[in-house]
Amino acid sequence: METTETKHFTFACPPEELALESGETLGPVTLAYETYGELNPQGTNAVLVAHGLSADAHAAGRSRFDGSVGWWDKLIGPGKGIDTDKYFVICSNIIGGCRGSTGPSSINPRTGRPYALSFPSVTIGDMVNAQRRLIDHLGIDKLLAVAGGSMGGMQVLQWLVAYPERIRAAVPIATTLKHTPQQIAFNEVGRQAVIADPNWKNGDYYCGKVPASGLAVARMIGHITYMSDASMAVKFGRRTKPEREPFKFSANFEVESYLRNRGDNFVKRFDANSYLYITEALDHFDLLNGHSLGDVFKGVKAKILAIAFASDWLYPAYQSREIVKACKLAGVEASYCELSSTYGHDAFLLETEQEAQLISHFLRAVANGNGNGGR
Amino acid sequence: METTETKHFTFACPPEELALESGETLGPVTLAYETYGELNPQGTNAVLVAHGLSADAHAAGRSRFDGSVGWWDKLIGPGKGIDTDKYFVICSNIIGGCRGSTGPSSINPRTGRPYALSFPSVTIGDMVNAQRRLIDHLGIDKLLAVAGGSMGGMQVLQWLVAYPERIRAAVPIATTLKHTPQQIAFNEVGRQAVIADPNWKNGDYYCGKVPASGLAVARMIGHITYMSDASMAVKFGRRTKPEREPFKFSANFEVESYLRNRGDNFVKRFDANSYLYITEALDHFDLLNGHSLGDVFKGVKAKILAIAFASDWLYPAYQSREIVKACKLAGVEASYCELSSTYGHDAFLLETEQEAQLISHFLRAVANGNGNGGR
Repeated sequence: METTETKHFTFACPPEELALESGETLGPVTLAYETYGELNPQGTNAVLVAHGLSADAHAAGRSRFDGSVGWWDKLIGPGKGIDTDKYFVICSNIIGGCRGSTGPSSINPRTGRPYALSFPSVTIGDMVNAQRRLIDHLGIDKLLAVAGGSMGGMQVLQWLVAYPERIRAAVPIATTLKHTPQQIAFNEVGRQAVIADPNWKNGDYYCGKVPASGLAVARMIGHITYMSDASMAVKFGRRTKPEREPFKFSANFEVESYLRNRGDNFVKRFDANSYLYITEALDHFDLLNGHSLGDVFKGVKAKILAIAFASDWLYPAYQSREIVKACKLAGVEASYCELSSTYGHDAFLLETEQEAQLISHFLRAVANGNGNGGR
Repeated sequence: METTETKHFTFACPPEELALESGETLGPVTLAYETYGELNPQGTNAVLVAHGLSADAHAAGRSRFDGSVGWWDKLIGPGKGIDTDKYFVICSNIIGGCRGSTGPSSINPRTGRPYALSFPSVTIGDMVNAQRRLIDHLGIDKLLAVAGGSMGGMQVLQWLVAYPERIRAAVPIATTLKHTPQQIAFNEVGRQAVIADPNWKNGDYYCGKVPASGLAVARMIGHITYMSDASMAVKFGRRTKPEREPFKFSANFEVESYLRNRGDNFVKRFDANSYLYITEALDHFDLLNGHSLGDVFKGVKAKILAIAFASDWLYPAYQSREIVKACKLAGVEASYCELSSTYGHDAFLLETEQEAQLISHFLRAVANGNGNGGR
């Protein structure tokens, strides 16, 4: 496995600040990113990978910093689905996060203290606008493709509508044109769990205890939605811990200790305010926004491959079919593939064999100037 | 609408204490209950109705106490699905709760203070054993039927296996033989939200502030699971409040304010410790408990009508089909009906027209000495 390293790109001085969709500006802006493979002399082989809610720029290889393996390493590397022998792969961390890019836990240079809730609201559009600056900085005129799952998939769709001239292909995976009330509801409960934690202190906790309990509960809710009824039945069943304690709210069932561990670990690597900002960006994402489905992708020239997973109930397959329908209504070349994994939403990270094949064929066809070779 | 009143039955002195499945005993035990209609001279027309997690003894009519309408009033009353002109209907509040029956918020007569976490763990079996005392007290030898949805359905199934000789028919609705890890997981996250609230104080909050934020979050999670993706899309869509505030974690979407209201209202009428005890009872319920499916209902003579709702993803229809399979494997007469409501788990409370018809036909057939007349 190759050793990889996270780099940082900062655009700082006016007019280099980032104009946000809210009307506010943000600057300086730092983006953490990683790259794998080499950009070809023509600059035509760049693939941008966009990550989900809690991931970061470290998508592939082994980190020089801490030895960790990238979140999509199964898919990205020499000879893999997104083949770094052929493509120059970029993964950019999002703004609003806490994994090296500017977010609410960053120091506001005007005050010398963390932004906390003085950080402006950001949208999926803002995240993509920041990424576009990075792509400019890397000297890439036109991306071969943008690919990503979940919130990464929303960034893919946003790239299509915001920068149609700078993208030849798009792979939105397990994602949606807009959040449903059920998707909003799960995020809202997570936010309320954070906000209810007295350590949250209206976001101003950076000099004291972090709202660990609230954020852990939010993450536990998230984890339930990432799995499926079937995958949980296989993974945990009703198995109890060997040293089963008498009831009274101890974690007797394996699924309980698993969720508690996941919640506690998340707190160590993620900022609660980032969780609030990012989930709000997800909920406000709405490519329709009152327009008709056929108008969403008007003028888009890129080819689209949409992938969904049958057991994903957080971003159900019907939402991916709606993306494809919107493409077709706009005359955009799009194909759709539904994979039968039982892993739920997590399938796009875990059960990658067929996903990798689909993407590999699709990218090759686009690179060769053909349409949906992956069909 | 008839005016109804909650009564109380207390069994107190040894050997009248309740022997719990944990090996502990509980006493005195008070059960809040309501009755509607008249017991016939032969004592053969009694129908016991069992309630879900957060409901109480007030199942029908208008409360003399506060004017509220019973939780299953659509189904219970003169000429309704469970016809109080024909049947004597009893609804008993569960032990462990906080709606008039003995639970963790009750005063422990040995200490003069609320039990809090010194209250023993209770099971669905314990709840049913307490109800059996009430049925004895009311002079009923054999119930015509026991009916209920969700946790009420678990009590129905428990009656079948614990007291097969005292029940002629059973109507388990939107329920299961045992909780899956996904069902346990949702409850566990709710419990963790309560426990994370610093006001919870290991259950010892009765003289101070209640853990309102934690319990509200738990209830919000619950509400998401009671609805369906489709019903939420119809009820809320992506509608925002008219006085839409700029982002920053205010409840902009209608679904957000709805959930917050539901959470806040729940705190006013429900005890957090009861929430912990009851959800734990749900999670530990397991009629299989290592035995084969065909053994669960061995020796049962009652007729069963199982009802499920297609859009219920909290207690999916496959769990009701498994109940029926277990009956058939044991040679027990059982029929199954899946209703096509879009209301999710809440359908058993909200979309009652067909449910009422099914139950009405079934009860009449059983009362007339026939089998599954409802088929």
